[in-house]
Amino acid sequence: MANKELKSDIGRIVQQTMPDIVESRLREYLKEKSFRPGDPLPKEVDLAESLGVSRNVVREALSRLRMLGMVETKKKRGMVLASPDILSSFERVLDPSIIGENTLKDIFELRLVLEMGLAELIYARKTAADVAELKEIALRQMDGKKDNFRIKNEIEFHGKLYEMSGNDTLKRFQNMLLPIFDYVVKTEPRFISGKISHLDLANILERGSKEEFREGMYEHLKPHFDRLKRLG
Amino acid sequence: MANKELKSDIGRIVQQTMPDIVESRLREYLKEKSFRPGDPLPKEVDLAESLGVSRNVVREALSRLRMLGMVETKKKRGMVLASPDILSSFERVLDPSIIGENTLKDIFELRLVLEMGLAELIYARKTAADVAELKEIALRQMDGKKDNFRIKNEIEFHGKLYEMSGNDTLKRFQNMLLPIFDYVVKTEPRFISGKISHLDLANILERGSKEEFREGMYEHLKPHFDRLKRLG
Repeated sequence: MANKELKSDIGRIVQQTMPDIVESRLREYLKEKSFRPGDPLPKEVDLAESLGVSRNVVREALSRLRMLGMVETKKKRGMVLASPDILSSFERVLDPSIIGENTLKDIFELRLVLEMGLAELIYARKTAADVAELKEIALRQMDGKKDNFRIKNEIEFHGKLYEMSGNDTLKRFQNMLLPIFDYVVKTEPRFISGKISHLDLANILERGSKEEFREGMYEHLKPHFDRLKRLG
Repeated sequence: MANKELKSDIGRIVQQTMPDIVESRLREYLKEKSFRPGDPLPKEVDLAESLGVSRNVVREALSRLRMLGMVETKKKRGMVLASPDILSSFERVLDPSIIGENTLKDIFELRLVLEMGLAELIYARKTAADVAELKEIALRQMDGKKDNFRIKNEIEFHGKLYEMSGNDTLKRFQNMLLPIFDYVVKTEPRFISGKISHLDLANILERGSKEEFREGMYEHLKPHFDRLKRLG
């Protein structure tokens, strides 16, 4: 136990490979020199020479930045700094089968926090057409067979809520989080759904206040909050 | 305008390089075969042969997975699948000088959503010692010179709030978001602070209800919500 504590307090030293070092140095350099999207990067051969490393190492480091969307190759102009898609690398690692238990729990809670905090954006931006579409979704889902947490329904209904927030990043984020959420819920032997249904929430959005919506969302998510309290 | 719409609707075809393709194929393969953290990966030379590509390309693709924390090299055992730190690649790209305007706006709002949604976790887990420490932070900050949004104070106070939520991922996430938030706020010519101060929030946490805390947080963040409504 003391050993485990030491391990978590002192942290593990992760040995850096040459590409790790060059990648990090490159990112620092781009920042120090205030590179902006569209600016051409130094040539691979010049970078290798200046850094005193092989071209293969530079190529590997640049390949990583390319994967992050920080660098792209333009016809005739060669490599330029790009405006990265901030969620694409996040998406790559969000796989419940490789993420640790604690992180899974954190992500589970993160979704609860987001849903409880969404009311302001939704109420600032929702339209009558949005609410009508949401209601249609909720009504259609009631015809399906009874199932407390069906990932397809959840993504459809809550995805529409996120869309109504007018925030694309948030919507994509939600789409990534739900499969993780689903995975955690499925580890529960028995899952009881909240008192407030998707249709109830849609009705509140039609006629109720921001505060009522938040209360409704809390009731809708309550089994998850209870679960969280149970587990501590 | 029609042209811009077309561009956004049809999307741009991004040409994939060989490392892009191999990286994506590798991730699929690991998923299909249900690799778990600790499982050894096939050898570089075997991967190259099976995929019919050069070893350099495989090395580049593996280097990317290594950067994402999905792969690590173990003494004697070679490369194994690892449990990635889901935020580390996110951290790499969160640089306000290269992120596009729309994404910056989305991140600005994301922080507001998180803060408004935090009440449940905080009230489920806060201790008297936590609240005392938070109050101390707020009192200490009042001695400093008057400044409406000082990133250091914001990180200190709101960071403690996130810590009280008992969610490490959320806390790290917040630490990454605040510099972006700061960057956006600084583009405002004039910034008026909310009616509710850090100290007021700490006092509510000491004696008030979850609902009062949420109302207080809304008032604290109100200038940001107003800004958001102004910009649409």
